[in-house]
Amino acid sequence: MNIDTILKFFVPKDHSFYPLFEKDAQNLIKTAEVLKLLMETEDLEQQEAYVTKIKELEKIGDDITHTIFDQLNKSFITPFDREDIQQLASNIDDVVDTINGAGQRIRLYKPKTYISVYREFAEVIYRSAKEIEYSVDLMKDPASNKDRIIESCITINTLENKADDLYHQGISSLFENEKDPFELIKKKEILETLEKAVDKAEDVSDAIKTIMVKLA
Amino acid sequence: MNIDTILKFFVPKDHSFYPLFEKDAQNLIKTAEVLKLLMETEDLEQQEAYVTKIKELEKIGDDITHTIFDQLNKSFITPFDREDIQQLASNIDDVVDTINGAGQRIRLYKPKTYISVYREFAEVIYRSAKEIEYSVDLMKDPASNKDRIIESCITINTLENKADDLYHQGISSLFENEKDPFELIKKKEILETLEKAVDKAEDVSDAIKTIMVKLA
Amino acid sequence: MNIDTILKFFVPKDHSFYPLFEKDAQNLIKTAEVLKLLMETEDLEQQEAYVTKIKELEKIGDDITHTIFDQLNKSFITPFDREDIQQLASNIDDVVDTINGAGQRIRLYKPKTYISVYREFAEVIYRSAKEIEYSVDLMKDPASNKDRIIESCITINTLENKADDLYHQGISSLFENEKDPFELIKKKEILETLEKAVDKAEDVSDAIKTIMVKLA
Repeated sequence: MNIDTILKFFVPKDHSFYPLFEKDAQNLIKTAEVLKLLMETEDLEQQEAYVTKIKELEKIGDDITHTIFDQLNKSFITPFDREDIQQLASNIDDVVDTINGAGQRIRLYKPKTYISVYREFAEVIYRSAKEIEYSVDLMKDPASNKDRIIESCITINTLENKADDLYHQGISSLFENEKDPFELIKKKEILETLEKAVDKAEDVSDAIKTIMVKLA
Repeated sequence: MNIDTILKFFVPKDHSFYPLFEKDAQNLIKTAEVLKLLMETEDLEQQEAYVTKIKELEKIGDDITHTIFDQLNKSFITPFDREDIQQLASNIDDVVDTINGAGQRIRLYKPKTYISVYREFAEVIYRSAKEIEYSVDLMKDPASNKDRIIESCITINTLENKADDLYHQGISSLFENEKDPFELIKKKEILETLEKAVDKAEDVSDAIKTIMVKLA
Repeated sequence: MNIDTILKFFVPKDHSFYPLFEKDAQNLIKTAEVLKLLMETEDLEQQEAYVTKIKELEKIGDDITHTIFDQLNKSFITPFDREDIQQLASNIDDVVDTINGAGQRIRLYKPKTYISVYREFAEVIYRSAKEIEYSVDLMKDPASNKDRIIESCITINTLENKADDLYHQGISSLFENEKDPFELIKKKEILETLEKAVDKAEDVSDAIKTIMVKLA
């Protein structure tokens, strides 16, 4: 797919999508990092600060997504099909949104304790974010990096399977140990939101796979 | 994209999609209107009447969706990519289905009271429906109306953000004030279904954005 | 669409997608069959055996999905658009995953009793799986079988509507009869997962409809 390399000469610099996606993926990693910090503290003030930070990063992500969409409507030539670029941006946005959803729920529900899998979930989300950033970076030259991109998509898939196990483990321990139905509902919903964030990361890898399959 | 205007001369009248989408969007608005009425009464008989009405409108929406799909399979030339027309119709259908889901839950769960955000949610859904109808109408001439269509999509996005805040506000008040776990589960699920309806409205705007991006 | 028949001569045998999709659809039917058995027993040891079997079938499904994706990246000519083949495979995978999700929840939650609609749900899922297998088989020659494929998609749609009614019926009976909030949460979530499996089956029919619409 050397056409890709050729395109870079033709596409005006300010219309290039790579820096925008790079920025978007970096923003996702930052959000996942703050989520990890949030899951390591039960101090309410600290929690509040981290949740506020995640909300800020979510706004930044929104702006990047809108910029990508605006560029798509201005650019004559795009490296991949327009609708696939839009899908990829929209899916990265969904991961950040869902991490923010988990943050908001912690702030609003004020669960009396965390359950232990929350921290492991934050780690899985962080590792998925790293894989997404790695893939997005490799997509600058999709033809040469094809195998590595697909491998990275498989890793994201494996992380999603791990998340499923964590979810089952978490739910199981909740039903065994939590005797207050209100606390159970709260903790269960935070767990579900964390699992949803990993699902959304897998949607990103699906969007990447669609792009790669079209180039095949 | 003047090709669009040209196409109108070639496409046989009965194969035209615009009247069908217009009808579909109008049906969505009607459904959202009845939802607003439903959220303003706690009289059980009135509720029953409105829920029945929503169910009827959902059946009408189903029929329109099937007709669009049948037309897609008969028409040789379509104004946009077939799969995008199908996606748009299917997403509008999802909004109506989810509003019906909220109605059914109210009828089945018989929550003892409504929480105050329900009414605000119905308003947000109604305003999203109005924006969808506005965009769909403008898509008769997408080239001339591009900026206004995109603006309308951004408005739907803003409404979805507002819905997120409403959801958090509603959940927060539920966990503070609702002391009966069964009532909490019921009211929370109605809230979730209302939020899902707004999410589905945003999916409609995504489908519109995909069509616009392809025309760029 | 006789091109389809022609293609079969050109596409190397090992790159053919039909045997893979056939295998995938058969695997889905097997999974749905075990779900039916699971829903007919409240013996814990039997349940455990069925849940383990479903988990095994889910792994097999994963392997088939990966093989399809690998083939997509190797094949020069594909019978339908690559991204649509990927979508179809991914959606069939989602049905199997969700059935497994229902199985896992039964194993983990150990609900004290089943509610009666579980069994009816398993039947609806099984019938949807049979329709999917039937459609996939007909897609070997989509042009000649078009009407029958679309009819089958409509049947899947009707099954999904039936599932909605079952869900409402189940929820309604849960809120009336279940006095333990923990049991209610467990049984409700199993119900939701079963409903989700039918939704995922409808997504398969949507993917098939997209392929058919493009061939129109």
